Amino acid sequence: MGNYNQIAGQNLERISALSDGIFAVAMTLLVLDLRAPTAELIHDNAGLINALRDIVPQVVVFFMSFITLGIFWIGQQTQLNNLTSSDRDLTWLHLLFLVFVTLTPFSTDLMGAFIQYRLALLVYWGNILLLGAALFLTWRCAMAKNLVKPELSSALEAGIERRIIIAQSLYAFGAALCVINTYCSLGFIVLVQMNYVFAPRIFGLNKI
Amino acid sequence: MGNYNQIAGQNLERISALSDGIFAVAMTLLVLDLRAPTAELIHDNAGLINALRDIVPQVVVFFMSFITLGIFWIGQQTQLNNLTSSDRDLTWLHLLFLVFVTLTPFSTDLMGAFIQYRLALLVYWGNILLLGAALFLTWRCAMAKNLVKPELSSALEAGIERRIIIAQSLYAFGAALCVINTYCSLGFIVLVQMNYVFAPRIFGLNKI
Amino acid sequence: MGNYNQIAGQNLERISALSDGIFAVAMTLLVLDLRAPTAELIHDNAGLINALRDIVPQVVVFFMSFITLGIFWIGQQTQLNNLTSSDRDLTWLHLLFLVFVTLTPFSTDLMGAFIQYRLALLVYWGNILLLGAALFLTWRCAMAKNLVKPELSSALEAGIERRIIIAQSLYAFGAALCVINTYCSLGFIVLVQMNYVFAPRIFGLNKI
Amino acid sequence: MGNYNQIAGQNLERISALSDGIFAVAMTLLVLDLRAPTAELIHDNAGLINALRDIVPQVVVFFMSFITLGIFWIGQQTQLNNLTSSDRDLTWLHLLFLVFVTLTPFSTDLMGAFIQYRLALLVYWGNILLLGAALFLTWRCAMAKNLVKPELSSALEAGIERRIIIAQSLYAFGAALCVINTYCSLGFIVLVQMNYVFAPRIFGLNKI
Repeated sequence: MGNYNQIAGQNLERISALSDGIFAVAMTLLVLDLRAPTAELIHDNAGLINALRDIVPQVVVFFMSFITLGIFWIGQQTQLNNLTSSDRDLTWLHLLFLVFVTLTPFSTDLMGAFIQYRLALLVYWGNILLLGAALFLTWRCAMAKNLVKPELSSALEAGIERRIIIAQSLYAFGAALCVINTYCSLGFIVLVQMNYVFAPRIFGLNKI
Repeated sequence: MGNYNQIAGQNLERISALSDGIFAVAMTLLVLDLRAPTAELIHDNAGLINALRDIVPQVVVFFMSFITLGIFWIGQQTQLNNLTSSDRDLTWLHLLFLVFVTLTPFSTDLMGAFIQYRLALLVYWGNILLLGAALFLTWRCAMAKNLVKPELSSALEAGIERRIIIAQSLYAFGAALCVINTYCSLGFIVLVQMNYVFAPRIFGLNKI
Repeated sequence: MGNYNQIAGQNLERISALSDGIFAVAMTLLVLDLRAPTAELIHDNAGLINALRDIVPQVVVFFMSFITLGIFWIGQQTQLNNLTSSDRDLTWLHLLFLVFVTLTPFSTDLMGAFIQYRLALLVYWGNILLLGAALFLTWRCAMAKNLVKPELSSALEAGIERRIIIAQSLYAFGAALCVINTYCSLGFIVLVQMNYVFAPRIFGLNKI
Repeated sequence: MGNYNQIAGQNLERISALSDGIFAVAMTLLVLDLRAPTAELIHDNAGLINALRDIVPQVVVFFMSFITLGIFWIGQQTQLNNLTSSDRDLTWLHLLFLVFVTLTPFSTDLMGAFIQYRLALLVYWGNILLLGAALFLTWRCAMAKNLVKPELSSALEAGIERRIIIAQSLYAFGAALCVINTYCSLGFIVLVQMNYVFAPRIFGLNKI
């Protein structure tokens, strides 16, 4: 019997290549929200300074989103590097993850334009939540289907999962801080991201 | 004799890389139609909620197009994974397929902006039809030229072809539903796509 | 002595990957000139038909540019597939080629907007000429530096060069036809491209 | 103990692929600032000539930025080609480098629109400086962690570092020339870039 689904979506390299491409485009599109001010409105250096000062929130959100995508890119490639192969279901879960990657420039744009609105923050956090949830599902699926490399210890397998849950709990707490105001939320989310990027790691959470 | 055409376009990896790149850009460009509302027109959270509600059709069409591209990306990579090499003609057929991939953001944009017009739906369906037709031709060409891996059973070879024909018949039926209205068409097309993405598969068509 | 230039730019795979990426983005950006009409100006199916009819020249130019990029992509990959390695100078020549690839969406945009102006046609042809000239230089450089695979016959080596010269002569003749009008030029250029894409090849030029 | 950080970010190929993707998108986005003039404002060939003459500064800045990105792309790939593997910290440093790559279309856009303003030039130079600093850090990090291929001579290792410092000193001198005017700065920066692209190299600096 010719069952297409048995041979579809097995190639890990193609998933990696598509993912790298989508991350590359999404990361670069983030910058499209940083438009140079309109030349007609600027008459001197001081005018240009003011115009650039006006886009400082967008620049901050741009860096935050780039780091977000960087964290999830490393997370996904760590998973893919530790698989033996893929199948059609796992490929679709990675595509689910990637659709949320492509949404990041939109939620970043929204966040930069409406930085003082809770709704913009919740959309942005929702995007991070969905990225984390999709990455959790890809890993669960890979483990359930025995697609993970046998040499990976079960402690490490569990570590990947736990890491996602803790990170998402911190992001959720950060989002909840918007009951105070959105700047508190943003500040906390940036702190969490710094923890995942830099040593000597605050909270010691990266040891997990 | 120095015949350029004998050595042109043989490299499967380059076709895969170009395809992954084009799919990655097209998938990410889809989101460009989702623009954040203009900041000057929004004065409170309620205004932002209304503005976001206005782009719900675009979001639906965005997800539909992402799934469409995902289905065709898996379809193409399944073909490419099962070839031994390419030649100049097959490469041009894959480029034909890719030109319709690059048109998807345009027809998606049109569909999102004119969701109640039959013409927009027909353009969108025409795009899907051309993607399917091109993928059918690439496979026919690969089989005719004996570029398919010998270990692939002829049942599977035929399965790939049949799968495209059935999917396209369903899409055509969905497009025809626009004699009722375009929302019927869209709903049916989404159902067909769900069948190709999710288990436990409606209609049992994925068994083919 | 630590001479950076001895170790810089040797990696053929990276040149291929950057090239595939740039071609993928350029090919997909072509479609950005095809904007869906503004929703506010369209009130019925007939209005939409008219609006779509207005962008027919852009669609034609879009397909022409996609084919142009396809021809040059195959031309470049055929060269890269037949090299043993690269060096810093050859890498810079490939970057020169790639800069003209990135200019293609601009000259296409110009051509689509000013299809009746000779200047737009000359800019477009200039772009094709520079693409051809750069590809000629990369091949000359690769041959002069003995970077071509030894198993490639010298007849084939000369064939690659001759092919570029003949194609460029035809394009130049086509551009010269703009003394009659720009539609003659475009028509002839499209014919030349068809010759390079389809069998059974008009003029028999593809045998060279 | 399942320590995620031990297995994260080790894959050099994925860093290369993401980098090639980001460079490809950034290089191609540069051209987006070159918009075809608005059709409604142009009535004859002379009008089109004038409109194209108006974007000459943008075209110059476009080429300059493409060369800048080319220089840094070669610089990064030379590093990556000479590593045995990566780790999480080095991967984050490469992401830091890449964030400045994605900023290049923005600073180019700013430079093209405000070519006579010192601030625009300083932002542009700041971008180059940050690219150089990040590339310096990636190399330092790779050497400190013994990730460099053992066959690379220590003279070459030092050469890569020295090269970055000299280039950055020249760029800084160029930027300082803006106390005269911005065209002096731009002219000097273009000269420095030519030195890095072409033989027979002015200043003899490329021998280092």
